[in-house]
Amino acid sequence: MTEQHPAILTDPSSVGLVATQMYHYDGQLDLESGQQLGPLDLAYETYGALNAAKDNAILIIHALSGNAHAAGYYTPEDRKPGWWDVMIGPGKAFDTNRFFVVCSNTIGGCSGSTGPGSINPATGQPYGMTFPIITIPDMVNAQRLLMDYLGIPCWYAVSGGSMGGMQVLQWVVSYPERVARCIPIATTHRLSAQSIAFNAVGRAAIMSDPDWCDGNYYDRQLPTNGLAVARMVAHITYLSEESMHAKFGRNLRHADAYTWKFDPEFSVETYLHYQGDEFVKRFDANSYLYITKAMDYFDLGVSTGSLVKAMEVVKARFLVMSYSSDWLFPTAQSREIVRALRFNGIDVSFVEIESPSGHDAFLLEYDEMTKLIRGFLEK
Amino acid sequence: MTEQHPAILTDPSSVGLVATQMYHYDGQLDLESGQQLGPLDLAYETYGALNAAKDNAILIIHALSGNAHAAGYYTPEDRKPGWWDVMIGPGKAFDTNRFFVVCSNTIGGCSGSTGPGSINPATGQPYGMTFPIITIPDMVNAQRLLMDYLGIPCWYAVSGGSMGGMQVLQWVVSYPERVARCIPIATTHRLSAQSIAFNAVGRAAIMSDPDWCDGNYYDRQLPTNGLAVARMVAHITYLSEESMHAKFGRNLRHADAYTWKFDPEFSVETYLHYQGDEFVKRFDANSYLYITKAMDYFDLGVSTGSLVKAMEVVKARFLVMSYSSDWLFPTAQSREIVRALRFNGIDVSFVEIESPSGHDAFLLEYDEMTKLIRGFLEK
Repeated sequence: MTEQHPAILTDPSSVGLVATQMYHYDGQLDLESGQQLGPLDLAYETYGALNAAKDNAILIIHALSGNAHAAGYYTPEDRKPGWWDVMIGPGKAFDTNRFFVVCSNTIGGCSGSTGPGSINPATGQPYGMTFPIITIPDMVNAQRLLMDYLGIPCWYAVSGGSMGGMQVLQWVVSYPERVARCIPIATTHRLSAQSIAFNAVGRAAIMSDPDWCDGNYYDRQLPTNGLAVARMVAHITYLSEESMHAKFGRNLRHADAYTWKFDPEFSVETYLHYQGDEFVKRFDANSYLYITKAMDYFDLGVSTGSLVKAMEVVKARFLVMSYSSDWLFPTAQSREIVRALRFNGIDVSFVEIESPSGHDAFLLEYDEMTKLIRGFLEK
Repeated sequence: MTEQHPAILTDPSSVGLVATQMYHYDGQLDLESGQQLGPLDLAYETYGALNAAKDNAILIIHALSGNAHAAGYYTPEDRKPGWWDVMIGPGKAFDTNRFFVVCSNTIGGCSGSTGPGSINPATGQPYGMTFPIITIPDMVNAQRLLMDYLGIPCWYAVSGGSMGGMQVLQWVVSYPERVARCIPIATTHRLSAQSIAFNAVGRAAIMSDPDWCDGNYYDRQLPTNGLAVARMVAHITYLSEESMHAKFGRNLRHADAYTWKFDPEFSVETYLHYQGDEFVKRFDANSYLYITKAMDYFDLGVSTGSLVKAMEVVKARFLVMSYSSDWLFPTAQSREIVRALRFNGIDVSFVEIESPSGHDAFLLEYDEMTKLIRGFLEK
């Protein structure tokens, strides 16, 4: 085994083989909508060891299509590690020699935690569209249940990019006493009209797919066409014009001549179709509806009247990062967060990292992020 | 009648009531793909009068979803004039007191000119997906047939925005002797990977709609769901983040409280759905496929090896305009055109117009455009 996969099992910077664990909560979670959700399952993974003082725990929060598998490998045969393996491990930015790193799948998701594809114990059938609307604060409240279960009084740090970053911001507002350091990356304190619009297109693609059947498709053909289109359009927003030009330009799929057909003609088309087709193998269309809806609702300052007011309670220190070519959650939106923090006298470092990779840079630019995060976590 | 609609019939700056005319070409048009298309119908409109010297004709070219109805009204009851009525009329930028203005619907379209929804005389059935692939040069070649039919030796000017601008650029390369002045607006000399990607999403939405039926839907339910999604995503690219924020922000559809439902919650969602639903009433899904494909193929310098080389033949003078917030065909792409023209010693004026309106600015910012175009047409 080790001879076949030496890199996975002998890499000193990898957390190695990991397993997803399940936390079952038998109560009811009160949701922002006024509804309740429960009992709850939360899929989570941990890397490193919790110390005796229980003060070395870091929460990592995934983005829209992520899951609890942030680092390491499930089996020696795995070709890909967890989604943020470049950042989590011995000697990495989130150093598992020192920290106990926790990542859980969001409620509403489809990778182990209770979501619309889960069986509703009241009916014995999948929730489908009877699943209640969930929000970013609801996601954070579910994570707090897990935190209590793990016996962690205060996170040493919470970090995540994109929708993960929204939850990071929500954490310090919902539970200011329970977060010491906060690292929101490539994110926003409220979804813009343009981002809501892109989410609306994705949902329209899914909900107009006849296979969607009002969400009751779990025992039949899945709405793969609609979900693939939703993923294709979202994927464009994760890249930059610059990176798409560098990666694909006008390269043709087949050699050097036009085919004059409607099959994908350019490499970028093939790539996008591939992204759509791969996504439907691992993601549930109803989860996509619920999670994009949660993002739409996110507006951290709405209940207090302003972001500055919402940030008044914050006790954590901040490292805010954005990427120069991210047009989904551009630097200007991170600057709004930084301004609100500074207005409240909160200790905040802000860095816009130069990168051509667009929004996806938070999954790619690990060198620069590692330097910044390592320094920040020392303090 | 005039008492009911005084504005339409008495406005001295309007071309007033107009009618679409049809030009029938009985031959075959040789297409870039090697196929042929014919016989051809071309729907066109004219405003103003051709002078005796036949040297005052201006060609206006529409964008993806446009048509021959560029100015005026079909009936006194019309609530909306032609798509560029703000620019065409007595005393306007394209002054019909002085110029004979021509606009024709593109081949492949669905507003009178021969397209996939037209009857193929060889079969007596709609072409559907047996319609040949067309390109921007093919569109221009069809316009040249109309030009010859109208007896116009040389256009005083050609102008258009977006896909219209691509054809404008193609005109001066395909027929350098037949264009005196060239006004490409908010356009590009070749479609970028990102733009191809957005077009690919739109086509995927249409072609995965079961009602599309491989394009054979003309006698049954139309693929309205797929076409609406295609329009929704395209519409986002026509606006800017800034304009969407100013127009919609996070305004709610219903009063001031969340509904916690999957119906559109935010005004921007309602708006986008409305855009999709209106579009399917007037546009053919197969035309959408063919025209976006034509845009994908557009690369003015590809056959000569470079844009600079392609521009060597140009004889026209240029006014190039872009908009500061247009991210579909951003200013940098107009600058590439300007550089290639200047390299060839061609007389070119270039203006980036400050506007928050994104790509759609070419339909909206008529004050600034009018000043610039009026001055340019004097020379």
